[in-house]
Amino acid sequence: MHIDVLTLFPEMFSGVMGSSILKKAQDRNKFTYDLVNFRDYSQHKHQKVDDYPYGGGAGMVLAPQPIFDAVEAVKSKRPTQPRIILMCPQGETYTQKKAEELAEEDHLILICGHYEGFDERIRSHVASDEISIGDYVLTGGELGAMVVMDSVIRLLPDVLGNEESAPQDSFSTGLLEHPHYTRPANFRGMEVPEVLLSGDHAKIEAWRKRQALERTYERRKDLLLKKNLSADLQCLLNELQNEKK
Amino acid sequence: MHIDVLTLFPEMFSGVMGSSILKKAQDRNKFTYDLVNFRDYSQHKHQKVDDYPYGGGAGMVLAPQPIFDAVEAVKSKRPTQPRIILMCPQGETYTQKKAEELAEEDHLILICGHYEGFDERIRSHVASDEISIGDYVLTGGELGAMVVMDSVIRLLPDVLGNEESAPQDSFSTGLLEHPHYTRPANFRGMEVPEVLLSGDHAKIEAWRKRQALERTYERRKDLLLKKNLSADLQCLLNELQNEKK
Repeated sequence: MHIDVLTLFPEMFSGVMGSSILKKAQDRNKFTYDLVNFRDYSQHKHQKVDDYPYGGGAGMVLAPQPIFDAVEAVKSKRPTQPRIILMCPQGETYTQKKAEELAEEDHLILICGHYEGFDERIRSHVASDEISIGDYVLTGGELGAMVVMDSVIRLLPDVLGNEESAPQDSFSTGLLEHPHYTRPANFRGMEVPEVLLSGDHAKIEAWRKRQALERTYERRKDLLLKKNLSADLQCLLNELQNEKK
Repeated sequence: MHIDVLTLFPEMFSGVMGSSILKKAQDRNKFTYDLVNFRDYSQHKHQKVDDYPYGGGAGMVLAPQPIFDAVEAVKSKRPTQPRIILMCPQGETYTQKKAEELAEEDHLILICGHYEGFDERIRSHVASDEISIGDYVLTGGELGAMVVMDSVIRLLPDVLGNEESAPQDSFSTGLLEHPHYTRPANFRGMEVPEVLLSGDHAKIEAWRKRQALERTYERRKDLLLKKNLSADLQCLLNELQNEKK
């Protein structure tokens, strides 16, 4: 996979791209990326990339020319059709399912705005996708692009080791995770639940399933509504709902 | 405001903290922050911070001792009661409302896991909040912490200039934004809607309102359900729904 990131702030990416999984995945040639400052493509004499909005109002708008030209330039370097993704608050809310979909692609182009909105013609004629990482306002699309990269790269084959991949797969199973405990069994008087020390694997499994369901029920009922629960989980859920009455 | 970030990968923060609004806000003393590697607090002879889960299963679990001690150390440096936030997929889904709430605080402690889950005793006895930035799996809590910092810092008084603050406030108004256009009026045959060139401000306002509502209706009906629409928006929405029938 190759990822092009179009941004006015390429220096924002250094820490994240140089650490951890993203660094390891690059070192092992699992993906490549380029940071493209679309200001370099501006035909304006002062390399301006934005301008006042038609119809008035506060704020500036990212003009079409620099982004159209930057996208064409990075597209022309590769034979495959890229997914061209605008990072913006008006986009589709990002989910694990979307990450899995993007992980199948050969070439992603991520376009980051900063402060300003995009000229609508960029949306309608350049972008194949618009993504928002959540319902909050950020100063730019850069953190969103990093979130997309991190979540996608870790899904590529052979990127994660075993010890890294197993936990936190909440959004693949559709339930929040059960509680975890590690040593010591008693930390400053706070004890690990006895069942986990019992060595009875069937009991442990049942406890964990119930805890995961209970946590999801308490915190994220919306996830339960989306999920087709297996028969035993549905049964557990009925039990839980009866108890809460 | 002071922010302490507890992380095993402090180097991930350099690019984001050194750029743009976060850099400007630091330079103007709007906030301070420390990156605290909680590995430095481990009493284990090899500075280990994680261990195998009780009850078995894949993945490692972040042990209580290093994080309890790191939190106590950073708490003791300040007189005020901090908000202590675990970044994790089981947390409350982050929203602009939460950002606004956190922007009122004097001291935030953000705790980032990496790969592993937290020992449950950290959740129950250290954290005051648990935050998830969205329903996708990331390799660690670091990007989440940066998202929280960026979204909170830009809300602090006098951090944003006028030209930066106005647009993209989608999640404050409850509607997605209307389309933006800037020069040229005709870009490669793609034209700006006539109304925006009309100079008729009432018409422009009406067009924008209708576009914002239409876009929200098409992409994010869930936002409309949450919002108490003003009478004129409700009327517009009824019109829209009738047309779509």
